[in-house]
Amino acid sequence: MPNIKVAILGATGTVGQRFVQLLQDHPWFEIAAVVGSERSAGRTYGEACRWVLDSEMPAAVREMTVLEDTASLDTPLVFSALPSSVAGPIEERLAAAGHIVCSNASNHRMEIDVPLLIPEVNPDHLQLIDIQRQRRGWSGAIATNPNCTSTPLTMALRPLLDKFGLRRVMIVSMQALSGAGYPGVPSYDSVDNVVPFIGGEEEKVESEPQKMLGVFRDEKVVPAGFNTSAQCNRVPVLEGHLESVAVELATQPPIEDVVAALRDFQALPQELSLPSAPGQPIVVLDAPDRPQPRRDRDTGNGMATVVGRVRACPLFGYKFVILGHNTIRGAAGGSLLNAELMVAQGYLG
Amino acid sequence: MPNIKVAILGATGTVGQRFVQLLQDHPWFEIAAVVGSERSAGRTYGEACRWVLDSEMPAAVREMTVLEDTASLDTPLVFSALPSSVAGPIEERLAAAGHIVCSNASNHRMEIDVPLLIPEVNPDHLQLIDIQRQRRGWSGAIATNPNCTSTPLTMALRPLLDKFGLRRVMIVSMQALSGAGYPGVPSYDSVDNVVPFIGGEEEKVESEPQKMLGVFRDEKVVPAGFNTSAQCNRVPVLEGHLESVAVELATQPPIEDVVAALRDFQALPQELSLPSAPGQPIVVLDAPDRPQPRRDRDTGNGMATVVGRVRACPLFGYKFVILGHNTIRGAAGGSLLNAELMVAQGYLG
Amino acid sequence: MPNIKVAILGATGTVGQRFVQLLQDHPWFEIAAVVGSERSAGRTYGEACRWVLDSEMPAAVREMTVLEDTASLDTPLVFSALPSSVAGPIEERLAAAGHIVCSNASNHRMEIDVPLLIPEVNPDHLQLIDIQRQRRGWSGAIATNPNCTSTPLTMALRPLLDKFGLRRVMIVSMQALSGAGYPGVPSYDSVDNVVPFIGGEEEKVESEPQKMLGVFRDEKVVPAGFNTSAQCNRVPVLEGHLESVAVELATQPPIEDVVAALRDFQALPQELSLPSAPGQPIVVLDAPDRPQPRRDRDTGNGMATVVGRVRACPLFGYKFVILGHNTIRGAAGGSLLNAELMVAQGYLG
Amino acid sequence: MPNIKVAILGATGTVGQRFVQLLQDHPWFEIAAVVGSERSAGRTYGEACRWVLDSEMPAAVREMTVLEDTASLDTPLVFSALPSSVAGPIEERLAAAGHIVCSNASNHRMEIDVPLLIPEVNPDHLQLIDIQRQRRGWSGAIATNPNCTSTPLTMALRPLLDKFGLRRVMIVSMQALSGAGYPGVPSYDSVDNVVPFIGGEEEKVESEPQKMLGVFRDEKVVPAGFNTSAQCNRVPVLEGHLESVAVELATQPPIEDVVAALRDFQALPQELSLPSAPGQPIVVLDAPDRPQPRRDRDTGNGMATVVGRVRACPLFGYKFVILGHNTIRGAAGGSLLNAELMVAQGYLG
Repeated sequence: MPNIKVAILGATGTVGQRFVQLLQDHPWFEIAAVVGSERSAGRTYGEACRWVLDSEMPAAVREMTVLEDTASLDTPLVFSALPSSVAGPIEERLAAAGHIVCSNASNHRMEIDVPLLIPEVNPDHLQLIDIQRQRRGWSGAIATNPNCTSTPLTMALRPLLDKFGLRRVMIVSMQALSGAGYPGVPSYDSVDNVVPFIGGEEEKVESEPQKMLGVFRDEKVVPAGFNTSAQCNRVPVLEGHLESVAVELATQPPIEDVVAALRDFQALPQELSLPSAPGQPIVVLDAPDRPQPRRDRDTGNGMATVVGRVRACPLFGYKFVILGHNTIRGAAGGSLLNAELMVAQGYLG
Repeated sequence: MPNIKVAILGATGTVGQRFVQLLQDHPWFEIAAVVGSERSAGRTYGEACRWVLDSEMPAAVREMTVLEDTASLDTPLVFSALPSSVAGPIEERLAAAGHIVCSNASNHRMEIDVPLLIPEVNPDHLQLIDIQRQRRGWSGAIATNPNCTSTPLTMALRPLLDKFGLRRVMIVSMQALSGAGYPGVPSYDSVDNVVPFIGGEEEKVESEPQKMLGVFRDEKVVPAGFNTSAQCNRVPVLEGHLESVAVELATQPPIEDVVAALRDFQALPQELSLPSAPGQPIVVLDAPDRPQPRRDRDTGNGMATVVGRVRACPLFGYKFVILGHNTIRGAAGGSLLNAELMVAQGYLG
Repeated sequence: MPNIKVAILGATGTVGQRFVQLLQDHPWFEIAAVVGSERSAGRTYGEACRWVLDSEMPAAVREMTVLEDTASLDTPLVFSALPSSVAGPIEERLAAAGHIVCSNASNHRMEIDVPLLIPEVNPDHLQLIDIQRQRRGWSGAIATNPNCTSTPLTMALRPLLDKFGLRRVMIVSMQALSGAGYPGVPSYDSVDNVVPFIGGEEEKVESEPQKMLGVFRDEKVVPAGFNTSAQCNRVPVLEGHLESVAVELATQPPIEDVVAALRDFQALPQELSLPSAPGQPIVVLDAPDRPQPRRDRDTGNGMATVVGRVRACPLFGYKFVILGHNTIRGAAGGSLLNAELMVAQGYLG
Repeated sequence: MPNIKVAILGATGTVGQRFVQLLQDHPWFEIAAVVGSERSAGRTYGEACRWVLDSEMPAAVREMTVLEDTASLDTPLVFSALPSSVAGPIEERLAAAGHIVCSNASNHRMEIDVPLLIPEVNPDHLQLIDIQRQRRGWSGAIATNPNCTSTPLTMALRPLLDKFGLRRVMIVSMQALSGAGYPGVPSYDSVDNVVPFIGGEEEKVESEPQKMLGVFRDEKVVPAGFNTSAQCNRVPVLEGHLESVAVELATQPPIEDVVAALRDFQALPQELSLPSAPGQPIVVLDAPDRPQPRRDRDTGNGMATVVGRVRACPLFGYKFVILGHNTIRGAAGGSLLNAELMVAQGYLG
């Protein structure tokens, strides 16, 4: 069993905290360094971090000193929870210096030679790493995970595209407060309210699935052909993005076949038994009023995509509800599973 | 100025309370009777009614005795806030007995000779009253207002259909808790949660606009030709239904023309200066993050339809956000405006 | 290791669901019967129960048939989650018939020969069982656990009374919605609101601790001498009762001694390693803004009492904040620990 | 009728916005200047201010240019909504320069020659202005209003002290999110949670009432003799601080006399019919579950103190619930009424 030392960039933020939480007792990875801003540097993680998660801060990191300088990092694997305002160049320098960077930041997601990866969806896109190294002359590499709203959507679309073909996708999201980070949304804006706007979100949701569901051919990814329209809303929920989705397929399968395609979906992470892979990538609920964020977000330890209310749509043929845990599978957990896949595929350790 | 005595059926429920609240100091109507269930009958309204609105219970009704029997009612106008489980036959008996019944119940909405009415949208459908009386031999009549989610949607669609033609409408609603009545949604289900299901709601939203936007010809209403798909969610908001809407028009006007069509929409209630008509039926907001339920639901005293984020949709051409106050314009206020139109049109008093 | 079959009364309600949840995989107890109302009787638990907890319904009970008649019960141990409106006579009949009834209902709590029990606080009060059997001629017995607000309060008062003496206790509670059961508090009353009243609650909190902290002497419990005043409020929180408490002690120890007395408190359930006993009965937090319901209610699997902000009070000498999980330690979990103590003390199996 | 030009310091913050809202259409005062931070200076108020209140931003101020420099202010009256981190010296300079400064900041509240004023409670303390001018050689003056939690508490204590004498006051507050300003409390901390700590709050609540209820004698205020203990909590409510209060009086009046003393309390602002004075300073509700923040905070346009559940306390004799609107009467509205009193008393205009 591999034992790989990892560093976490942006370790004191909410996504950074999720990395710390999920890496506690991880069978393959061990936190060797926590990196923070100038403000945190030099203090212990326990002092520097305003821990906001409901679980306790792992004792192992509490006494670690927060580093600022990334040049001295010597861990083969680096998880990036940096804000996109600063992530770009830092991640590039680390990749150039030989580190494998698994990033949750949006900066490099859409670059032609950077894998935008969901292990259940497009593991073959990892081949972009070789192109990336070639073109950039890097010994390390950057791999990214998608936006928190794109993640469960793309997971659910994978089997539908494979089995029935995909023409059009209309999605309206009801996104959790934690998606805005911390302090994030002021409570004065969220009580008894919904905010029908999240900056930059709709663009991401309309573009990222195209790349992930695209075909890797002749050293590049050919975007999938379907079209998407997204409308994103912020609702007073702590964790778990809920999505009302309508899809137009290339064929007209009966509803039960669509349910079966989702429910029976199996993928590489499950075959490889990756440590963070959920037993079932997509869980379909039968109750008429599920999934619900609070009651279903922890399905598969927050790594599964939960689907419900699969039914006929008068316009597109099919509509259903999708739920994904935005700060686990949609952020830190997604990056972590990417790293596990890279280990299993021999890119690491 | 007319002075018309009115009775309220289901007066102690939440919609009934809204009727009581909106009829306080009304220039034309005066509450002469409050009707309730067997349990309330004989007690004063103050005793029988667990008042849940934030304003105070009007002193005028506090001492009125709640009636159970509707046979003895002698008011020309009756507002019905009855649950659909009992509304049907009671409303029919009252119409047969010569009362004008303005009903918020769903029972008769889709009947071929019953007007499903939004005064700004289809005032001409009032002609169905004559057909109704003819066919049923009634001296009174039943007029209904649409479902709380259909109301602001249909209002916004009216000018779009008139100016540009309408092909397809995709709507996802985020509906307020008050829409479920009182006690309605248990708080244990709504805190930190969204429920992606509201029984019977999607069917109503997919059918009612067709009738209201249909053309009255040869003594009946020919449904409008466009198709609709609805997905309805319950969010932790007190009042105000928010709707993410995408529309496909028959033509391709520039966005600013769509905005203008909505903003400049004028209608009969405004021309007639009906007491409860909002100055502007549709208010378009420019801020990128509006409308928001808590901050915008009271626009036009809760009688206006508020629209925002009008923008291009990659699939349908146009998408925007709609907000309507569900217990005012979407329920009691809608019925009240219907009654005011009937007075102005000579059907009453 | 004992293997004792148990029945749950009121099994489909929220407290009943907690019993089912906590008894899943219990080392000593096995659910042999679930009892419900006439409405549920004859249906499977899965059909009859509207499961509201966030965890999944245990598969083991899903297919069990809900019984109505309690006469035929043959389990030595019965947990009662019955509402106080019906619990009284049913629990008495079962005790007379030889069952040990561990009840969460308030009916018998204050009866002179019925133990009102918190295993960490007054295990010796179990001796009341012998008096009870003698006086009532029962082969079985009734033991009760206190009200959800009294539980953590009494737990925190135990070491203070023992070490410093107790004169007066002023408590203001901020209680979770789940305390009202399901459907319980309508969401329309709880959003953006606090309700400063909970029927019957203040009386219970002012009386129950007196009995539990009383001394067992000459076959009865002599109530503790201190006085209590309680003010109870309902806040928009799912689980976890928060209590602002001020206490006047008989002596004037320094604050750190009070903290030490709470933190170092050890009791019988911990010595006996009862399966549901928390490692530490009272957990004292140092952060200035803790305990918080959402972040700290699950301390010790929801069985610990969490204390924070121990500081000087200008009036009473000492004030602090207490948090307890109301549906675990304050209800089903409390009853369960009582049963475990009775087993360990030889009253059962 | 006076027409006095006023300036607002910290005009773009939440309290500043309340000043703008309450001064709209004020019969005596007219906003002549809005002052903000360096960041806002030079922009129009409409651009610089992220308006968070539910009402619309008054058109009159939207186009006003936000000033930074206070030296050039020429309005006789200045309202200060500055944070205490900067308020001190700025307010002093303005008072020295001849302005009457009505401040909501805490900096000068407890200074011996500065009135801490609630017009219904201690209008005679205005005499401190003369002492203040004498001692400091100012042509202007500073008058302050108390903390948002102290305000309704002190108002309710006034008639009790006068009629029955006051010995001890125990208060536990459940405070609204708006009290923390904007952005204030992160929504991630407030959903499904209560925070049992508000920095510096308990000290203010334990000291301010002593000064306000003190007697002005020999050119200074002799603090009232009673003792107070406060515990402050932050609850998920938008506006309105709820307080559970127990009081020990010098005498033992029957409950109904205590209720009468509160209900019948009349004071100078009502006699003078000051524009912002509520018709009744203290409104006592009879319903067992009131006052509630959302339903009762707007009583008397948010300027009244609402009391309920007056009952016996086993420890102190009397306990009750108090509600006050924290950003209206507890902040901007309190300052405004202070200014109105100063006009009526000839200190201004």
